[in-house]
Amino acid sequence: MATLGIDLGGTKIALGVLEGEELVYSARVATPSDGSEAVLQVMVAAAREALAESPVAVEAVGVGSPGPIDYRAGVVTYAPNIPDFADVPVVGRLRRALELPVFLENDANAAALAEHHLGAARGAESSFFVTVSTGIGGGAIIGGRVWRGAHGQGGEIGHLTVLPGGPVCGCGNRGCLEAVASGRALARDASYAYAREVSTPQLFDLWRQGDGKARELVSGSARYLGQALADVQKLLDPEVIVVGGGVGVGGGEEYLSLVRQAYADHLQVWRRAEIRAARLLERAGVIGAALVARFAN
Amino acid sequence: MATLGIDLGGTKIALGVLEGEELVYSARVATPSDGSEAVLQVMVAAAREALAESPVAVEAVGVGSPGPIDYRAGVVTYAPNIPDFADVPVVGRLRRALELPVFLENDANAAALAEHHLGAARGAESSFFVTVSTGIGGGAIIGGRVWRGAHGQGGEIGHLTVLPGGPVCGCGNRGCLEAVASGRALARDASYAYAREVSTPQLFDLWRQGDGKARELVSGSARYLGQALADVQKLLDPEVIVVGGGVGVGGGEEYLSLVRQAYADHLQVWRRAEIRAARLLERAGVIGAALVARFAN
Repeated sequence: MATLGIDLGGTKIALGVLEGEELVYSARVATPSDGSEAVLQVMVAAAREALAESPVAVEAVGVGSPGPIDYRAGVVTYAPNIPDFADVPVVGRLRRALELPVFLENDANAAALAEHHLGAARGAESSFFVTVSTGIGGGAIIGGRVWRGAHGQGGEIGHLTVLPGGPVCGCGNRGCLEAVASGRALARDASYAYAREVSTPQLFDLWRQGDGKARELVSGSARYLGQALADVQKLLDPEVIVVGGGVGVGGGEEYLSLVRQAYADHLQVWRRAEIRAARLLERAGVIGAALVARFAN
Repeated sequence: MATLGIDLGGTKIALGVLEGEELVYSARVATPSDGSEAVLQVMVAAAREALAESPVAVEAVGVGSPGPIDYRAGVVTYAPNIPDFADVPVVGRLRRALELPVFLENDANAAALAEHHLGAARGAESSFFVTVSTGIGGGAIIGGRVWRGAHGQGGEIGHLTVLPGGPVCGCGNRGCLEAVASGRALARDASYAYAREVSTPQLFDLWRQGDGKARELVSGSARYLGQALADVQKLLDPEVIVVGGGVGVGGGEEYLSLVRQAYADHLQVWRRAEIRAARLLERAGVIGAALVARFAN
Protein backbone atom coordinates (compact mmCIF):
# COMPACT_ATOMS: atom_id res chain seq x y z
CA MET A 1 0.00 0.00 0.00
CA ALA A 2 1.10 3.56 -0.68
CA THR A 3 0.97 6.08 2.14
CA LEU A 4 1.55 9.82 2.36
CA GLY A 5 4.05 11.00 4.96
CA ILE A 6 3.96 14.59 6.22
CA ASP A 7 6.96 15.77 8.23
CA LEU A 8 6.10 18.93 10.14
CA GLY A 9 9.20 20.98 10.92
CA GLY A 10 9.94 24.39 12.35
CA THR A 11 10.85 25.89 8.97
CA LYS A 12 9.40 23.50 6.39
CA ILE A 13 6.75 20.86 5.90
CA ALA A 14 8.03 17.93 3.81
CA LEU A 15 5.64 15.54 2.07
CA GLY A 16 6.25 12.23 0.33
CA VAL A 17 4.30 9.26 -0.99
CA LEU A 18 5.99 5.99 -0.09
CA GLU A 19 5.25 2.87 -2.11
CA GLY A 20 7.29 -0.16 -1.04
CA GLU A 21 10.73 1.32 -0.48
CA GLU A 22 10.45 4.22 -2.90
CA LEU A 23 9.35 7.79 -2.48
CA VAL A 24 7.25 8.15 -5.66
CA TYR A 25 6.27 11.75 -4.89
CA SER A 26 8.07 14.45 -2.88
CA ALA A 27 7.32 18.07 -2.09
CA ARG A 28 8.02 20.68 0.51
CA VAL A 29 6.45 23.95 1.60
CA ALA A 30 7.46 26.61 4.11
CA THR A 31 5.96 26.35 7.61
CA PRO A 32 3.84 29.44 8.31
CA SER A 33 4.92 31.29 11.43
CA ASP A 34 1.58 32.95 12.13
CA GLY A 35 -0.14 30.33 14.23
CA SER A 36 -1.55 26.83 14.13
CA GLU A 37 -4.54 27.60 11.89
CA ALA A 38 -2.24 28.82 9.11
CA VAL A 39 -0.05 25.71 9.53
CA LEU A 40 -3.06 23.41 9.31
CA GLN A 41 -4.31 25.16 6.16
CA VAL A 42 -0.92 24.81 4.46
CA MET A 43 -0.70 21.15 5.50
CA VAL A 44 -4.16 20.42 4.07
CA ALA A 45 -3.45 22.22 0.79
CA ALA A 46 -0.07 20.50 0.34
CA ALA A 47 -1.55 17.11 1.21
CA ARG A 48 -4.39 17.60 -1.30
CA GLU A 49 -1.85 18.46 -3.96
CA ALA A 50 0.18 15.35 -3.05
CA LEU A 51 -2.87 13.12 -3.32
CA ALA A 52 -3.79 14.65 -6.67
CA GLU A 53 -0.29 14.45 -8.15
CA SER A 54 0.89 11.14 -6.66
CA PRO A 55 1.38 8.51 -9.41
CA VAL A 56 -0.21 5.89 -7.10
CA ALA A 57 -3.35 5.91 -4.97
CA VAL A 58 -2.70 6.82 -1.34
CA GLU A 59 -4.51 4.78 1.29
CA ALA A 60 -3.50 6.49 4.51
CA VAL A 61 -1.63 9.51 5.84
CA GLY A 62 1.05 9.67 8.54
CA VAL A 63 2.20 12.87 10.22
CA GLY A 64 5.47 13.30 12.11
CA SER A 65 5.44 16.26 14.48
CA PRO A 66 7.89 17.73 16.95
CA GLY A 67 6.96 17.91 20.62
CA PRO A 68 4.80 15.80 22.91
CA ILE A 69 1.69 14.25 21.43
CA ASP A 70 -1.63 13.18 22.89
CA TYR A 71 -1.90 9.96 20.93
CA ARG A 72 -5.40 9.07 22.04
CA ALA A 73 -6.79 12.44 20.93
CA GLY A 74 -4.60 12.79 17.82
CA VAL A 75 -3.45 16.17 19.07
CA VAL A 76 0.00 17.82 19.09
CA THR A 77 0.32 19.08 22.68
CA TYR A 78 2.86 21.67 21.64
CA ALA A 79 5.63 22.02 19.06
CA PRO A 80 8.51 23.87 20.74
CA ASN A 81 9.89 25.30 17.48
CA ILE A 82 6.66 26.43 15.77
CA PRO A 83 5.11 29.67 17.06
CA ASP A 84 1.65 29.36 18.66
CA PHE A 85 1.36 25.66 18.00
CA ALA A 86 -0.33 24.12 21.04
CA ASP A 87 -3.17 21.60 21.44
CA VAL A 88 -3.57 21.30 17.67
CA PRO A 89 -6.01 18.58 16.51
CA VAL A 90 -3.93 17.49 13.53
CA VAL A 91 -5.55 14.09 13.05
CA GLY A 92 -9.17 15.25 13.11
CA ARG A 93 -8.50 18.19 10.83
CA LEU A 94 -6.59 16.22 8.18
CA ARG A 95 -8.99 13.29 8.32
CA ARG A 96 -11.99 15.48 7.60
CA ALA A 97 -10.20 17.39 4.85
CA LEU A 98 -8.61 14.39 3.11
CA GLU A 99 -11.17 11.67 3.88
CA LEU A 100 -8.40 9.19 4.61
CA PRO A 101 -7.16 7.52 7.82
CA VAL A 102 -4.58 9.80 9.49
CA PHE A 103 -1.96 8.77 12.08
CA LEU A 104 0.20 11.05 14.19
CA GLU A 105 3.64 10.30 15.64
CA ASN A 106 6.47 12.16 17.33
CA ASP A 107 9.03 13.07 14.66
CA ALA A 108 11.99 11.35 16.35
CA ASN A 109 9.93 8.17 16.68
CA ALA A 110 8.98 8.43 12.99
CA ALA A 111 12.64 8.84 12.00
CA ALA A 112 13.53 5.86 14.22
CA LEU A 113 10.95 3.79 12.35
CA ALA A 114 12.39 4.89 9.00
CA GLU A 115 15.99 4.05 9.94
CA HIS A 116 14.84 0.73 11.35
CA HIS A 117 12.95 -0.46 8.30
CA LEU A 118 14.65 1.28 5.40
CA GLY A 119 17.84 2.83 6.77
CA ALA A 120 20.87 2.06 8.92
CA ALA A 121 19.17 -0.48 11.23
CA ARG A 122 17.57 -2.47 8.46
CA GLY A 123 17.29 -6.16 9.33
CA ALA A 124 17.63 -5.65 13.09
CA GLU A 125 14.95 -6.92 15.48
CA SER A 126 15.28 -3.90 17.73
CA SER A 127 17.01 -0.56 17.35
CA PHE A 128 17.44 2.80 19.00
CA PHE A 129 17.67 6.05 17.07
CA VAL A 130 19.13 9.24 18.53
CA THR A 131 19.13 12.54 16.70
CA VAL A 132 21.61 15.16 17.90
CA SER A 133 20.92 18.58 16.43
CA THR A 134 19.59 21.77 18.09
CA GLY A 135 17.99 19.44 20.64
CA ILE A 136 18.34 15.71 21.22
CA GLY A 137 15.53 13.28 20.50
CA GLY A 138 15.26 9.55 20.26
CA GLY A 139 13.05 6.63 19.44
CA ALA A 140 13.02 2.97 20.43
CA ILE A 141 11.88 0.30 17.98
CA ILE A 142 10.89 -3.06 19.41
CA GLY A 143 9.53 -5.80 17.18
CA GLY A 144 9.44 -3.41 14.23
CA ARG A 145 7.14 -0.93 15.99
CA VAL A 146 7.72 2.30 17.90
CA TRP A 147 7.79 1.72 21.65
CA ARG A 148 5.96 4.84 22.87
CA GLY A 149 5.69 3.78 26.49
CA ALA A 150 2.71 4.21 28.79
CA HIS A 151 2.68 8.02 28.55
CA GLY A 152 4.11 8.60 25.06
CA GLN A 153 7.56 9.55 26.36
CA GLY A 154 9.49 6.34 25.62
CA GLY A 155 12.88 6.79 23.96
CA GLU A 156 13.42 10.35 25.28
CA ILE A 157 17.19 9.94 25.61
CA GLY A 158 17.69 13.73 25.46
CA HIS A 159 16.40 14.03 29.01
CA LEU A 160 18.41 11.34 30.75
CA THR A 161 20.38 12.87 33.60
CA VAL A 162 24.02 12.50 32.55
CA LEU A 163 25.56 15.23 34.75
CA PRO A 164 23.77 15.50 38.12
CA GLY A 165 23.78 19.14 39.20
CA GLY A 166 24.70 20.25 35.67
CA PRO A 167 23.11 23.00 33.57
CA VAL A 168 19.35 23.49 33.88
CA CYS A 169 17.51 22.02 30.90
CA GLY A 170 14.42 23.43 29.21
CA CYS A 171 12.48 20.65 30.98
CA GLY A 172 13.53 21.99 34.40
CA ASN A 173 15.84 19.11 35.27
CA ARG A 174 19.59 19.63 35.74
CA GLY A 175 22.19 17.89 33.61
CA CYS A 176 19.96 16.34 30.94
CA LEU A 177 21.90 14.98 27.95
CA GLU A 178 20.29 17.70 25.83
CA ALA A 179 21.52 20.38 28.26
CA VAL A 180 25.17 19.33 27.91
CA ALA A 181 25.52 17.71 24.46
CA SER A 182 23.03 19.25 22.00
CA GLY A 183 23.88 21.83 19.36
CA ARG A 184 22.26 24.53 21.46
CA ALA A 185 24.25 23.48 24.55
CA LEU A 186 27.48 23.42 22.52
CA ALA A 187 26.83 26.93 21.18
CA ARG A 188 26.15 28.13 24.75
CA ASP A 189 29.37 26.59 26.08
CA ALA A 190 31.46 27.71 23.09
CA SER A 191 30.19 31.28 23.34
CA TYR A 192 31.20 31.28 27.00
CA ALA A 193 34.59 29.65 26.39
CA TYR A 194 35.53 32.03 23.56
CA ALA A 195 33.81 35.04 25.18
CA ARG A 196 32.04 35.80 21.89
CA GLU A 197 29.04 34.47 19.97
CA VAL A 198 30.00 31.08 18.46
CA SER A 199 27.45 29.00 16.53
CA THR A 200 27.54 25.21 16.43
CA PRO A 201 28.76 25.12 12.79
CA GLN A 202 31.50 27.61 13.69
CA LEU A 203 32.49 25.43 16.64
CA PHE A 204 32.72 22.37 14.41
CA ASP A 205 34.89 24.35 11.98
CA LEU A 206 37.25 25.23 14.84
CA TRP A 207 37.19 21.60 15.94
CA ARG A 208 38.23 20.39 12.48
CA GLN A 209 41.07 22.94 12.55
CA GLY A 210 42.31 21.30 15.76
CA ASP A 211 41.55 24.19 18.10
CA GLY A 212 42.06 23.08 21.73
CA LYS A 213 38.91 24.54 23.28
CA ALA A 214 36.79 23.24 20.42
CA ARG A 215 38.21 19.73 20.85
CA GLU A 216 37.37 19.82 24.55
CA LEU A 217 33.83 21.04 23.87
CA VAL A 218 33.04 18.58 21.07
CA SER A 219 34.60 15.58 22.80
CA GLY A 220 32.62 16.49 25.92
CA SER A 221 29.41 16.31 23.91
CA ALA A 222 30.48 12.96 22.43
CA ARG A 223 31.39 11.59 25.88
CA TYR A 224 27.99 12.42 27.33
CA LEU A 225 26.24 10.95 24.30
CA GLY A 226 28.27 7.73 24.68
CA GLN A 227 27.41 7.58 28.38
CA ALA A 228 23.68 8.00 27.63
CA LEU A 229 23.80 5.37 24.87
CA ALA A 230 25.43 2.96 27.35
CA ASP A 231 22.45 3.60 29.66
CA VAL A 232 20.15 2.83 26.73
CA GLN A 233 22.08 -0.41 26.19
CA LYS A 234 21.50 -1.47 29.80
CA LEU A 235 17.79 -0.61 29.89
CA LEU A 236 16.43 -1.21 26.40
CA ASP A 237 19.35 -3.27 25.05
CA PRO A 238 18.73 -2.65 21.33
CA GLU A 239 20.47 -4.68 18.66
CA VAL A 240 21.57 -1.60 16.71
CA ILE A 241 22.00 2.09 17.58
CA VAL A 242 21.64 4.75 14.88
CA VAL A 243 22.99 8.27 15.36
CA GLY A 244 21.57 11.07 13.24
CA GLY A 245 20.97 14.82 13.29
CA GLY A 246 23.08 17.82 12.37
CA VAL A 247 25.67 17.28 15.10
CA GLY A 248 25.50 13.48 15.07
CA VAL A 249 26.02 13.11 11.35
CA GLY A 250 27.65 16.49 10.72
CA GLY A 251 30.51 15.59 13.06
CA GLY A 252 31.30 12.72 10.74
CA GLU A 253 33.14 9.51 11.57
CA GLU A 254 35.55 11.36 13.89
CA TYR A 255 32.68 12.48 16.14
CA LEU A 256 31.07 9.03 15.98
CA SER A 257 34.32 7.34 16.98
CA LEU A 258 34.48 9.54 20.10
CA VAL A 259 30.90 8.50 20.88
CA ARG A 260 31.75 4.82 20.36
CA GLN A 261 34.77 5.09 22.66
CA ALA A 262 32.80 6.66 25.52
CA TYR A 263 30.01 4.14 25.00
CA ALA A 264 32.47 1.23 25.23
CA ASP A 265 34.13 2.74 28.34
CA HIS A 266 30.78 2.50 30.12
CA LEU A 267 30.11 -1.07 28.97
CA GLN A 268 33.30 -2.90 29.91
CA VAL A 269 31.73 -6.25 30.81
CA TRP A 270 28.51 -5.66 28.88
CA ARG A 271 27.54 -6.62 25.37
CA ARG A 272 27.45 -3.75 22.93
CA ALA A 273 25.36 -2.81 19.93
CA GLU A 274 26.80 -1.55 16.70
CA ILE A 275 26.60 2.26 16.54
CA ARG A 276 25.89 3.31 12.96
CA ALA A 277 25.50 6.68 11.26
CA ALA A 278 21.97 7.46 10.07
CA ARG A 279 21.44 6.83 6.35
CA LEU A 280 18.17 8.47 5.42
CA LEU A 281 19.19 11.88 6.77
CA GLU A 282 16.70 14.60 5.84
CA ARG A 283 14.43 12.00 4.18
CA ALA A 284 14.00 10.08 7.47
CA GLY A 285 11.17 12.33 8.65
CA VAL A 286 8.94 11.97 5.62
CA ILE A 287 9.70 8.26 5.10
CA GLY A 288 9.06 7.64 8.79
CA ALA A 289 5.76 9.51 8.71
CA ALA A 290 4.67 7.40 5.74
CA LEU A 291 5.69 4.20 7.58
CA VAL A 292 3.66 5.30 10.61
CA ALA A 293 0.59 5.19 8.39
CA ARG A 294 1.65 1.91 6.79
CA PHE A 295 2.15 0.06 10.08
CA ALA A 296 -0.87 1.56 11.82
CA ASN A 297 -3.11 -0.32 9.43
CA MET B 1 -1.68 -25.24 33.59
CA ALA B 2 0.45 -25.83 36.67
CA THR B 3 4.16 -25.05 36.49
CA LEU B 4 7.08 -25.57 38.85
CA GLY B 5 9.19 -22.53 39.68
CA ILE B 6 12.73 -22.91 40.98
CA ASP B 7 14.38 -19.81 42.43
CA LEU B 8 18.14 -20.32 42.66
CA GLY B 9 19.70 -18.14 45.32
CA GLY B 10 23.09 -17.76 46.97
CA THR B 11 22.00 -19.43 50.20
CA LYS B 12 18.80 -21.30 49.34
CA ILE B 13 16.89 -22.83 46.45
CA ALA B 14 13.15 -22.17 46.72
CA LEU B 15 10.62 -24.29 44.80
CA GLY B 16 6.91 -23.84 44.25
CA VAL B 17 4.13 -25.22 42.05
CA LEU B 18 1.88 -22.43 40.76
CA GLU B 19 -1.65 -23.24 39.60
CA GLY B 20 -3.67 -20.19 38.59
CA GLU B 21 -2.74 -17.65 41.26
CA GLU B 22 -1.96 -20.10 44.03
CA LEU B 23 1.23 -21.77 45.16
CA VAL B 24 -0.10 -25.28 45.77
CA TYR B 25 3.30 -26.66 46.79
CA SER B 26 6.31 -24.94 48.36
CA ALA B 27 9.71 -26.12 49.52
CA ARG B 28 13.22 -24.87 50.04
CA VAL B 29 16.66 -26.42 50.32
CA ALA B 30 20.08 -24.99 51.10
CA THR B 31 22.30 -24.07 48.14
CA PRO B 32 25.46 -26.21 48.21
CA SER B 33 28.63 -24.14 48.25
CA ASP B 34 30.91 -26.79 46.72
CA GLY B 35 30.48 -26.14 43.03
CA SER B 36 27.96 -26.24 40.22
CA GLU B 37 27.64 -30.04 40.02
CA ALA B 38 26.49 -30.22 43.64
CA VAL B 39 24.02 -27.39 43.02
CA LEU B 40 22.59 -29.14 39.95
CA GLN B 41 22.19 -32.42 41.87
CA VAL B 42 20.33 -30.69 44.70
CA MET B 43 18.12 -28.84 42.18
CA VAL B 44 17.23 -32.07 40.39
CA ALA B 45 16.48 -33.94 43.63
CA ALA B 46 14.32 -31.11 45.01
CA ALA B 47 12.48 -30.75 41.69
CA ARG B 48 11.77 -34.49 41.55
CA GLU B 49 10.37 -34.33 45.05
CA ALA B 50 8.21 -31.34 44.07
CA LEU B 51 6.83 -33.17 41.02
CA ALA B 52 6.09 -36.25 43.15
CA GLU B 53 4.46 -34.35 46.00
CA SER B 54 2.62 -31.63 44.06
CA PRO B 55 -1.17 -32.03 44.35
CA VAL B 56 -1.50 -31.17 40.64
CA ALA B 57 0.33 -32.37 37.54
CA VAL B 58 3.19 -30.07 36.51
CA GLU B 59 3.53 -29.34 32.79
CA ALA B 60 6.69 -27.24 32.66
CA VAL B 61 9.52 -25.93 34.81
CA GLY B 62 10.88 -22.38 35.11
CA VAL B 63 14.18 -21.48 36.74
CA GLY B 64 15.14 -18.02 37.99
CA SER B 65 18.88 -17.57 38.36
CA PRO B 66 21.16 -14.72 39.38
CA GLY B 67 23.70 -13.43 36.93
CA PRO B 68 23.84 -13.13 33.16
CA ILE B 69 22.25 -15.91 31.15
CA ASP B 70 22.87 -17.30 27.70
CA TYR B 71 19.23 -17.67 26.75
CA ARG B 72 19.81 -19.46 23.48
CA ALA B 73 21.94 -22.15 25.13
CA GLY B 74 19.93 -22.36 28.36
CA VAL B 75 23.13 -21.75 30.33
CA VAL B 76 23.83 -19.58 33.39
CA THR B 77 26.95 -17.66 32.36
CA TYR B 78 27.88 -17.07 35.99
CA ALA B 79 26.12 -16.51 39.28
CA PRO B 80 28.10 -13.90 41.21
CA ASN B 81 26.95 -15.10 44.65
CA ILE B 82 27.31 -18.89 44.21
CA PRO B 83 30.86 -20.31 44.38
CA ASP B 84 32.17 -21.96 41.22
CA PHE B 85 28.96 -21.45 39.28
CA ALA B 86 29.94 -20.56 35.72
CA ASP B 87 28.72 -21.77 32.31
CA VAL B 88 26.23 -24.14 33.91
CA PRO B 89 23.81 -25.87 31.48
CA VAL B 90 20.79 -25.65 33.77
CA VAL B 91 18.14 -26.15 31.10
CA GLY B 92 19.66 -29.25 29.48
CA ARG B 93 20.42 -30.91 32.78
CA LEU B 94 16.95 -30.37 34.28
CA ARG B 95 15.15 -31.25 31.05
CA ARG B 96 16.89 -34.61 30.83
CA ALA B 97 16.36 -35.37 34.51
CA LEU B 98 12.72 -34.26 34.71
CA GLU B 99 11.54 -34.99 31.17
CA LEU B 100 9.63 -31.71 31.09
CA PRO B 101 10.12 -28.45 29.19
CA VAL B 102 12.49 -26.20 31.18
CA PHE B 103 12.85 -22.40 30.81
CA LEU B 104 15.56 -20.21 32.32
CA GLU B 105 15.31 -16.54 33.24
CA ASN B 106 17.32 -13.95 35.15
CA ASP B 107 15.94 -13.79 38.71
CA ALA B 108 15.19 -10.05 38.64
CA ASN B 109 13.29 -10.51 35.38
CA ALA B 110 11.35 -13.41 36.94
CA ALA B 111 10.46 -11.29 39.98
CA ALA B 112 9.39 -8.47 37.64
CA LEU B 113 7.06 -10.91 35.87
CA ALA B 114 5.61 -12.03 39.21
CA GLU B 115 4.94 -8.48 40.46
CA HIS B 116 3.45 -7.58 37.08
CA HIS B 117 0.95 -10.42 36.89
CA LEU B 118 0.23 -11.29 40.52
CA GLY B 119 1.78 -8.50 42.61
CA ALA B 120 2.01 -4.74 42.89
CA ALA B 121 1.74 -3.98 39.16
CA ARG B 122 -1.25 -6.19 38.54
CA GLY B 123 -3.50 -4.81 35.79
CA ALA B 124 -0.82 -2.58 34.24
CA GLU B 125 0.09 -2.90 30.58
CA SER B 126 3.77 -2.25 31.27
CA SER B 127 5.82 -2.13 34.44
CA PHE B 128 9.35 -1.85 35.72
CA PHE B 129 10.63 -3.72 38.75
CA VAL B 130 13.73 -2.71 40.68
CA THR B 131 15.14 -4.72 43.56
CA VAL B 132 17.50 -2.91 45.92
CA SER B 133 19.32 -5.27 48.23
CA THR B 134 23.01 -6.26 48.32
CA GLY B 135 23.08 -5.37 44.63
CA ILE B 136 20.51 -3.67 42.41
CA GLY B 137 18.67 -5.53 39.67
CA GLY B 138 15.68 -4.79 37.51
CA GLY B 139 13.28 -6.10 34.94
CA ALA B 140 11.09 -4.48 32.30
CA ILE B 141 7.70 -5.97 31.42
CA ILE B 142 6.17 -4.92 28.11
CA GLY B 143 2.89 -6.42 26.93
CA GLY B 144 2.93 -8.88 29.82
CA ARG B 145 6.31 -10.36 28.86
CA VAL B 146 9.88 -9.78 30.01
CA TRP B 147 11.76 -7.44 27.68
CA ARG B 148 15.19 -9.05 27.67
CA GLY B 149 16.64 -6.91 24.93
CA ALA B 150 18.89 -8.02 22.12
CA HIS B 151 21.68 -9.30 24.39
CA GLY B 152 19.72 -10.34 27.49
CA GLN B 153 20.69 -7.23 29.45
CA GLY B 154 17.44 -5.23 29.23
CA GLY B 155 16.22 -3.70 32.49
CA GLU B 156 19.68 -3.56 34.14
CA ILE B 157 18.97 -0.37 36.05
CA GLY B 158 21.72 -1.19 38.58
CA HIS B 159 24.34 -0.25 36.02
CA LEU B 160 23.01 3.08 34.79
CA THR B 161 25.65 5.77 35.33
CA VAL B 162 24.11 8.06 37.95
CA LEU B 163 27.31 9.68 39.24
CA PRO B 164 29.90 10.15 36.46
CA GLY B 165 33.36 9.71 37.98
CA GLY B 166 31.87 8.08 41.08
CA PRO B 167 32.96 4.85 42.83
CA VAL B 168 34.15 1.99 40.60
CA CYS B 169 31.46 -0.68 40.23
CA GLY B 170 32.01 -4.42 40.04
CA CYS B 171 31.28 -4.09 36.31
CA GLY B 172 34.27 -1.73 35.86
CA ASN B 173 32.22 1.38 35.18
CA ARG B 174 32.30 4.36 37.53
CA GLY B 175 29.22 5.66 39.32
CA CYS B 176 26.73 2.90 38.50
CA LEU B 177 23.52 3.10 40.55
CA GLU B 178 24.57 -0.14 42.26
CA ALA B 179 27.93 1.38 43.21
CA VAL B 180 26.29 4.30 45.05
CA ALA B 181 22.86 3.09 46.23
CA SER B 182 22.94 -0.67 46.91
CA GLY B 183 23.13 -2.28 50.35
CA ARG B 184 26.79 -3.12 49.75
CA ALA B 185 27.56 0.47 48.70
CA LEU B 186 25.72 1.81 51.76
CA ALA B 187 27.71 -0.48 54.09
CA ARG B 188 30.93 0.69 52.41
CA ASP B 189 30.07 4.37 52.81
CA ALA B 190 28.72 3.92 56.35
CA SER B 191 31.84 2.05 57.46
CA TYR B 192 33.93 4.91 56.10
CA ALA B 193 31.74 7.64 57.61
CA TYR B 194 31.67 6.05 61.08
CA ALA B 195 35.28 4.75 60.85
CA ARG B 196 34.11 1.30 62.00
CA GLU B 197 32.37 -1.69 60.43
CA VAL B 198 28.69 -0.82 59.87
CA SER B 199 26.32 -3.26 58.16
CA THR B 200 23.33 -2.13 56.10
CA PRO B 201 20.81 -3.24 58.79
CA GLN B 202 22.84 -1.35 61.42
CA LEU B 203 22.81 1.72 59.18
CA PHE B 204 19.05 1.54 58.80
CA ASP B 205 18.70 1.24 62.60
CA LEU B 206 20.78 4.41 63.01
CA TRP B 207 18.66 6.06 60.30
CA ARG B 208 15.43 5.26 62.15
CA GLN B 209 16.98 6.73 65.30
CA GLY B 210 17.48 9.97 63.40
CA ASP B 211 21.29 9.87 63.30
CA GLY B 212 22.59 12.64 61.03
CA LYS B 213 25.20 10.68 59.07
CA ALA B 214 22.76 7.81 58.57
CA ARG B 215 20.11 10.18 57.22
CA GLU B 216 22.61 11.62 54.74
CA LEU B 217 23.69 8.16 53.62
CA VAL B 218 20.20 6.68 53.23
CA SER B 219 18.71 9.75 51.56
CA GLY B 220 21.68 9.74 49.15
CA SER B 221 20.81 6.17 48.15
CA ALA B 222 17.15 7.13 47.70
CA ARG B 223 18.07 10.20 45.62
CA TYR B 224 20.18 8.17 43.19
CA LEU B 225 17.45 5.54 42.91
CA GLY B 226 14.89 8.26 42.16
CA GLN B 227 17.22 9.74 39.52
CA ALA B 228 17.66 6.33 37.86
CA LEU B 229 13.92 5.63 37.93
CA ALA B 230 13.33 8.99 36.21
CA ASP B 231 15.74 7.82 33.50
CA VAL B 232 13.70 4.62 33.22
CA GLN B 233 10.56 6.75 32.86
CA LYS B 234 12.08 8.66 29.96
CA LEU B 235 13.40 5.62 28.08
CA LEU B 236 11.01 2.75 28.81
CA ASP B 237 8.12 4.84 30.17
CA PRO B 238 6.39 2.08 32.17
CA GLU B 239 2.89 2.49 33.52
CA VAL B 240 3.87 1.32 37.01
CA ILE B 241 7.18 1.07 38.92
CA VAL B 242 7.61 -1.54 41.66
CA VAL B 243 10.40 -1.26 44.24
CA GLY B 244 11.47 -4.40 46.10
CA GLY B 245 14.49 -5.92 47.82
CA GLY B 246 15.85 -5.71 51.36
CA VAL B 247 16.73 -2.00 51.15
CA GLY B 248 13.81 -1.02 48.90
CA VAL B 249 11.12 -2.64 51.04
CA GLY B 250 13.08 -2.73 54.32
CA GLY B 251 13.38 1.06 54.30
CA GLY B 252 9.60 1.20 54.41
CA GLU B 253 7.34 4.02 53.28
CA GLU B 254 9.81 6.64 54.57
CA TYR B 255 12.52 5.39 52.21
CA LEU B 256 10.04 5.09 49.33
CA SER B 257 8.82 8.65 49.86
CA LEU B 258 12.43 9.90 49.50
CA VAL B 259 12.69 7.90 46.28
CA ARG B 260 9.40 9.34 44.98
CA GLN B 261 10.53 12.90 45.77
CA ALA B 262 13.83 12.53 43.89
CA TYR B 263 12.03 10.82 41.00
CA ALA B 264 9.54 13.71 40.76
CA ASP B 265 12.35 16.31 40.96
CA HIS B 266 13.82 14.82 37.78
CA LEU B 267 10.47 14.69 35.96
CA GLN B 268 9.11 18.21 36.39
CA VAL B 269 7.34 18.51 33.02
CA TRP B 270 7.13 14.75 32.40
CA ARG B 271 4.39 12.30 33.15
CA ARG B 272 5.11 9.99 36.05
CA ALA B 273 4.32 6.42 36.92
CA GLU B 274 3.05 5.31 40.29
CA ILE B 275 5.91 3.95 42.42
CA ARG B 276 4.64 1.06 44.51
CA ALA B 277 6.24 -1.20 47.12
CA ALA B 278 6.68 -4.82 46.02
CA ARG B 279 3.98 -7.15 47.34
CA LEU B 280 5.21 -10.67 46.75
CA LEU B 281 8.50 -10.14 48.61
CA GLU B 282 10.42 -13.40 49.09
CA ARG B 283 7.78 -15.31 47.11
CA ALA B 284 8.39 -13.20 43.98
CA GLY B 285 11.32 -15.36 42.86
CA VAL B 286 9.54 -18.68 42.90
CA ILE B 287 6.24 -17.31 41.56
CA GLY B 288 8.15 -15.49 38.81
CA ALA B 289 10.08 -18.63 37.86
CA ALA B 290 6.79 -20.54 37.60
CA LEU B 291 5.31 -17.76 35.42
CA VAL B 292 8.35 -17.91 33.14
CA ALA B 293 7.39 -21.52 32.38
CA ARG B 294 3.71 -20.63 32.01
CA PHE B 295 4.25 -17.84 29.51
CA ALA B 296 6.98 -19.60 27.57
CA ASN B 297 4.42 -22.12 26.40
